[in-house]
Amino acid sequence: MKTAWVSIVMGSDSDLDELRDGIEALETFGISHDVRVLSAHRTPDALADYIKGAKERGTRVIIAAAGGAAHLPGVIASMTALPVIGIPIASKHLNGLDSLLSIVQMPAGVPVATMAIGKAGARNAAILAAQIIALFDQGVQKKLDDFRKEMAQKVIEKNEKLDELLKKGRKP
Amino acid sequence: MKTAWVSIVMGSDSDLDELRDGIEALETFGISHDVRVLSAHRTPDALADYIKGAKERGTRVIIAAAGGAAHLPGVIASMTALPVIGIPIASKHLNGLDSLLSIVQMPAGVPVATMAIGKAGARNAAILAAQIIALFDQGVQKKLDDFRKEMAQKVIEKNEKLDELLKKGRKP
Amino acid sequence: MKTAWVSIVMGSDSDLDELRDGIEALETFGISHDVRVLSAHRTPDALADYIKGAKERGTRVIIAAAGGAAHLPGVIASMTALPVIGIPIASKHLNGLDSLLSIVQMPAGVPVATMAIGKAGARNAAILAAQIIALFDQGVQKKLDDFRKEMAQKVIEKNEKLDELLKKGRKP
Amino acid sequence: MKTAWVSIVMGSDSDLDELRDGIEALETFGISHDVRVLSAHRTPDALADYIKGAKERGTRVIIAAAGGAAHLPGVIASMTALPVIGIPIASKHLNGLDSLLSIVQMPAGVPVATMAIGKAGARNAAILAAQIIALFDQGVQKKLDDFRKEMAQKVIEKNEKLDELLKKGRKP
Amino acid sequence: MKTAWVSIVMGSDSDLDELRDGIEALETFGISHDVRVLSAHRTPDALADYIKGAKERGTRVIIAAAGGAAHLPGVIASMTALPVIGIPIASKHLNGLDSLLSIVQMPAGVPVATMAIGKAGARNAAILAAQIIALFDQGVQKKLDDFRKEMAQKVIEKNEKLDELLKKGRKP
Amino acid sequence: MKTAWVSIVMGSDSDLDELRDGIEALETFGISHDVRVLSAHRTPDALADYIKGAKERGTRVIIAAAGGAAHLPGVIASMTALPVIGIPIASKHLNGLDSLLSIVQMPAGVPVATMAIGKAGARNAAILAAQIIALFDQGVQKKLDDFRKEMAQKVIEKNEKLDELLKKGRKP
Amino acid sequence: MKTAWVSIVMGSDSDLDELRDGIEALETFGISHDVRVLSAHRTPDALADYIKGAKERGTRVIIAAAGGAAHLPGVIASMTALPVIGIPIASKHLNGLDSLLSIVQMPAGVPVATMAIGKAGARNAAILAAQIIALFDQGVQKKLDDFRKEMAQKVIEKNEKLDELLKKGRKP
Amino acid sequence: MKTAWVSIVMGSDSDLDELRDGIEALETFGISHDVRVLSAHRTPDALADYIKGAKERGTRVIIAAAGGAAHLPGVIASMTALPVIGIPIASKHLNGLDSLLSIVQMPAGVPVATMAIGKAGARNAAILAAQIIALFDQGVQKKLDDFRKEMAQKVIEKNEKLDELLKKGRKP
Repeated sequence: MKTAWVSIVMGSDSDLDELRDGIEALETFGISHDVRVLSAHRTPDALADYIKGAKERGTRVIIAAAGGAAHLPGVIASMTALPVIGIPIASKHLNGLDSLLSIVQMPAGVPVATMAIGKAGARNAAILAAQIIALFDQGVQKKLDDFRKEMAQKVIEKNEKLDELLKKGRKP
Repeated sequence: MKTAWVSIVMGSDSDLDELRDGIEALETFGISHDVRVLSAHRTPDALADYIKGAKERGTRVIIAAAGGAAHLPGVIASMTALPVIGIPIASKHLNGLDSLLSIVQMPAGVPVATMAIGKAGARNAAILAAQIIALFDQGVQKKLDDFRKEMAQKVIEKNEKLDELLKKGRKP
Repeated sequence: MKTAWVSIVMGSDSDLDELRDGIEALETFGISHDVRVLSAHRTPDALADYIKGAKERGTRVIIAAAGGAAHLPGVIASMTALPVIGIPIASKHLNGLDSLLSIVQMPAGVPVATMAIGKAGARNAAILAAQIIALFDQGVQKKLDDFRKEMAQKVIEKNEKLDELLKKGRKP
Repeated sequence: MKTAWVSIVMGSDSDLDELRDGIEALETFGISHDVRVLSAHRTPDALADYIKGAKERGTRVIIAAAGGAAHLPGVIASMTALPVIGIPIASKHLNGLDSLLSIVQMPAGVPVATMAIGKAGARNAAILAAQIIALFDQGVQKKLDDFRKEMAQKVIEKNEKLDELLKKGRKP
Repeated sequence: MKTAWVSIVMGSDSDLDELRDGIEALETFGISHDVRVLSAHRTPDALADYIKGAKERGTRVIIAAAGGAAHLPGVIASMTALPVIGIPIASKHLNGLDSLLSIVQMPAGVPVATMAIGKAGARNAAILAAQIIALFDQGVQKKLDDFRKEMAQKVIEKNEKLDELLKKGRKP
Repeated sequence: MKTAWVSIVMGSDSDLDELRDGIEALETFGISHDVRVLSAHRTPDALADYIKGAKERGTRVIIAAAGGAAHLPGVIASMTALPVIGIPIASKHLNGLDSLLSIVQMPAGVPVATMAIGKAGARNAAILAAQIIALFDQGVQKKLDDFRKEMAQKVIEKNEKLDELLKKGRKP
Repeated sequence: MKTAWVSIVMGSDSDLDELRDGIEALETFGISHDVRVLSAHRTPDALADYIKGAKERGTRVIIAAAGGAAHLPGVIASMTALPVIGIPIASKHLNGLDSLLSIVQMPAGVPVATMAIGKAGARNAAILAAQIIALFDQGVQKKLDDFRKEMAQKVIEKNEKLDELLKKGRKP
Repeated sequence: MKTAWVSIVMGSDSDLDELRDGIEALETFGISHDVRVLSAHRTPDALADYIKGAKERGTRVIIAAAGGAAHLPGVIASMTALPVIGIPIASKHLNGLDSLLSIVQMPAGVPVATMAIGKAGARNAAILAAQIIALFDQGVQKKLDDFRKEMAQKVIEKNEKLDELLKKGRKP
C-alpha cells in the first residue's frame, strides 16, 4: 500500500463539497492522500487514534476543515508535530467568521496554517501542502512550477476574451 | 477527602484574575470545587485523563475558561456527559469576540453553556452551577435564594446614594 | 397531569421551525416538556405569570429562544432561580449576531446558558437540559449515554460512504 | 412636589458618569426630571412598579441607559406607552456594539428611540426629550432654539482659534 | 388641506417596500402624513427647502429612511428642531450594519431616534411617532392603547394554535 | 491610436458584471479608457509591466477592482504616482468587508481612493475619475455638470410617481 | 491673496491632531491650502456657503475629515463637482469602523475618495490631492516623484539599523 | 556564509517588537535565518529582487508580517513557490482584523499560511517553519519534539503554583 503523504480530515461529511477542489489539486500534483470524516467533538477518541499514528504511517502534512466553533484543526495540531493546515468552512449563520477565528487565533506553541474561508481555502491548502512537499521532492516541485505558469497563462488568455464580453454587456 | 462538585479548568494561568469572582461565588454558595490549569492544545493527554475521570470522582459540573481560539470548553464537552459551562476570556487583539464564537458556536450534539466574556461570565458560571446543583441540593438552593434577594437589595440601596453622587458631579 | 420538567418559551411563533430539533430531542430523552409563545416585549405580564409559577409546577429547566434584541432568555432569568438556557434565533438582517450578543452578554448575577445560533443551538439546548436532569435522574442519564455512543457511531459510518461520495464528485 | 417630566433610569450606578452630560442638558432646558438605578435583571419587580406608575405621575418621556445585554430600555418599553429613549453604554469587552444591538434591534410593536453609544448618546437623549416636549411646551421650545444657535456659534468661533492651533502644531 | 403631522422621507424609491408597514401603521393610528423621495446626496437643495418649511407647515415628527452611508436622517436633524426618527435600510452587501452605524452614531447636539434595521424599524418608527403625538392628542393616545392590547392578545392566540403546529411538524 | 485616459484593471474576469456600470459611465462622460484582467497574485510581472508604462501611454487615472484579500489597487498604487481608485468587490463569504478593509487601510505614503463595495462603487469610480479629469478638461466638466443636474431631476420625478406606488401597495 | 488649491474641512477641532501630518504633507508638496472647522450637523448653512463658493475661489480638491456618523465628506460631495477626499476619524467606542462605513458606502452618483482611518489616512489624503494636482502642474509632479524616492530610500536605510535593533532585543 | 533557511520580512521596522518571540524561537530550534524590512507598497522593486532570489540563496520558508491593508505576505506568495507564512500585525484602529482578513482571504492559487494576530502568531510562524523543516532535517525534528514536551511540562508545573496564587487572591 502506498503511503498517503497528505491526510485530509473534515469535521462533517457535509463539508465535502467545499473540499473537492483541494482533493483534485492534490491529484494534479501527484500527491498521495487519504480522506476521513472525524470530529473533534463527536469522535474525539477515534480522532486521537488516527492522528497519533499519522507520522508513523508516513503522513507529512495534515489538512483539516471545519465550521462554526471549528476546533478540529487546532485539536489535531495539539496531537502531532506534523504541519497542520486549517480550512474554515462557512457556517450557516455567521458566514465562516466564527470558523476563521476559531482556527486562526491559536495560542503560542500550537500553530495551524490557516487558509481562506471555503473553496478557495481548500484549493490553497492543497497548493501549500505541495509547496511544503516540494522542498524535498523534485517531482512535486516540477508540477508546482508548471501549475504556476498555467495559472498566469489563464489570466492572460482572459484578456483576449474581454473585448467580446464587454460588447455583450453593452446596452443597445 | 471531600468531593469537588465543580471543576474549574483554565487554559492558561493568566486567566486566573478573570476567574476569581467565580471561585469566590462558589465559596459563598458552599459548593466544593477544584481548580486546574490544563490546555486543550498544550496538554491534551493530561486534560483527557482529568476529564474522563471527573464523573467517577463525583464532579457534577465543569467550568472551563479560555481565550482566542478557545477550544477548551468544547473539547471538554466532547469527553464527558456532564454539563460544561464555558467562559470566554478576552483575547489581546479581538477583545474576546474570537473567544466567544469559538465557545458558543458548537455543533449539534455537544453543547457548551456559554457565559458573557470575562469577569461577569466567570461570576455567572458559578451562579449557573449553583442553579443546577440547587435542583437536587436544598442547602445550595437556600443560599441561592438569599443571594438573589441581596442582589436586588444592593440595587435599591444604590438609589439612596444617587442624590449624593449627582451633587458631586454637578459643575459649580 | 404529568409535570413538564422542561419549559420551552419562544418569543414568536415564527421561531418554531428552528426549535423542532430540540423538541424532538427532548422526546428522545423521554423528558416531559411544554411549549409556549410568550414575548418579553409584547406580553410581559403573561410571561411573568408563567415564569414565576414554573418552579412550583415542577419545572427544572427553562429553554428560551428569541431573535434580534433577544431579551426573552435574560428577562426570564431575572424572574426565576431555575437554570435558563438561551437559543439565539437568526435575525433577518444581522444573521443572529445581534441575537447572540443580546443573550450571552448578561451582567454578573443573572446567567443565561447560551447556545449556538439557530437549529444547532436548539438541539444542544435539549441535550444540555438532559445533561442537567441526568445529574438526578438515572433514566435520562442512560438515554444520554446511548445518544452519545450513537452520535460517534454515525460519524464512523460516514467514513464508509466517503469513498463512494468522492468517486461521484470526480470529474470524468 | 413638581412633576418630573423625564425619568432617567440606569441599569447600574457605574453608568452615571456616562449620563451626567444628559442630566445637565435637561437642567439647561429647564425640564424637571428624576434619576433612578433600576435593573431589568436584578430588580425586575421594582422596575415594573416604577414604570407602570410613570404616566400617572406625569412622566412624559423615559430615558434608559444600559450596557452589554442591554435589556433595560426594551423592557421598559414593554411596560409603558410613553416614548422610551435608549442609551447604549459601552461594555468592557465589546465597546458597546453588544449594548447598541441589544437596544436598537427591537421587534415590531415596541420601539426604543436609540442614541449613539456613551456620552454623546446621553446628551442627545436629553435633547431628543426636549424636542418632544417642545411640541407642546413653548418654554422648552424657546430654550431649544437658543441651544441650537449657540451650538452653531461655537463651531464658528473655533475657526478663529484654528490659525493659532495650526501654528502651535508646526514643527520648528 | 389637512396638515400632515408626520413627514416620511426616503432616500430612494427602492426603500418604499421596507416602509409600507410604517405608513400603514400611521393610517391605523389616524395620523395625517405625507411621503417624499428626497436624497441627502442627490437633491440637497430640494431636501433643505422641504425640511426648513416643515415646522411652519405643521409637521410634528419627521421619519427618514436610508441605506448604506445613510446620511439622510442626520442631515434632516441638522436642519430642524423637530424630533427626527431614523430607519436604517439594509444595504446590499453589509446587511444594514453600515446604515445603522451611519444613523445612530450622531455627534452630541443633533439626535436621531434610531429604529431597528428594515421593516420592524419602519413599523416602530410609526409607533414611536404615535407615542410622541399621544402626549398631546387624546385620540391618538386611545388608539395606541388599543393597539398595545391587540398586540398582546395576538400572542396569546398564537399559543392556542401552537399544539396544532407542533403536531404538524412531528415526523411520523 | 487614441490614448486611454482611464485604465480599468480587474483581478478576475468574474468581476466584470460589477464593473459594467462604471465602464458605461466613462462612455457617457466621453472619457477614453481601456479594460484589463490582471492579477496582483497570479500575474505580478504582467501587472508591473502594464502599470509602469501607464503614465508614458498617457493614462491619467487608474481604476482597480478586486475582492477578498484585495491587494490589486494597493499594489498598483505602489508602482505609479498616478491617482489610483479602488473598488471592493463583494467576496463570497464575508460580503466584501474583507475586500473593503484590504483596499482602504493602506499605510501612509501610498493612497488608494476607495469607493463603496460593488456596483455603486464601480459607478462612483468613473464619476470620481471624471471629476479629476474635469479639473483640466472643459468638455468633461460640462458633461459632469449635466450629469449632476439629471441625477437631481430623476429624484424629483420619482416623487410624482410615488402616490401611484403608494396606492398599489395599499391592502384593500 | 494666493488661491488655496486644497480645502481641508474637519467636523470638529478635536480632529486637528489627526490631520497635522496631512497639512504638513501639503506644505512639503508646495500646495496652497486653507483649513476650516465646519460641521455637517451643527453648521449646515455655513458649510453650504463655504463649499458652494469653493470652485469659484479656485479650489481644486476638498479634503474632509469626520468621525462617528461621519456625514461631512458625503454632504460636501453632494454640494460640489470637485473631487472630495474623506478621512475617517476614529470614534471613541467603535474605533472608526462607524466613521469608515459612513464615509465609504456612498450611493451611486456621489463619490467620496475614502482613505484609511486616522493619521495614515490624513497623510494619504494629502498625497492623493498632490497626485491629482500633478496631472496638470509640473512643479507638484516633480515634488511627488522626489517624495516617492525618499520614501523607498528610508525603508532601505532601516535595514541597516536592523541588526543593531535585533541585538538590543536579545535577552542576555 | 551559512545559508538562511528562513527569511523573515516585515513591512515596517515598528513591527519588530511583535516578531522578537518568533526570531528567538528560530534560534532555539537552531534554524538559520535573516531578517529584512521591505514594504510591498514603499519598496516594491527591492522586495521583488529579494524574493525572486530567495530559492537560489537556499531559503526554504518565508515569514512575512504586516498590518492594516497587509499585502506583504500575499505579494511575496505571488513571487515565489516557497511556502509563505503570514503574521497579521495589529493595526492601530481595527486591532488587526483588517490585517488578518488582508492576509488570510487569498484567492485560489496563491496560499499564505496565516497565523494568529500579533506575538502569538509570530511565535507560531517560527514553530510552523520548524515543523516544515523537520520533515527533511532530523536535528530540527529532535528539537521540536523537545520543545513540545517542555511546553506540556510547563503547564503541569503551573498547577503546582496554583494553590499559592489562589490564596493570594483571596480577600481576607
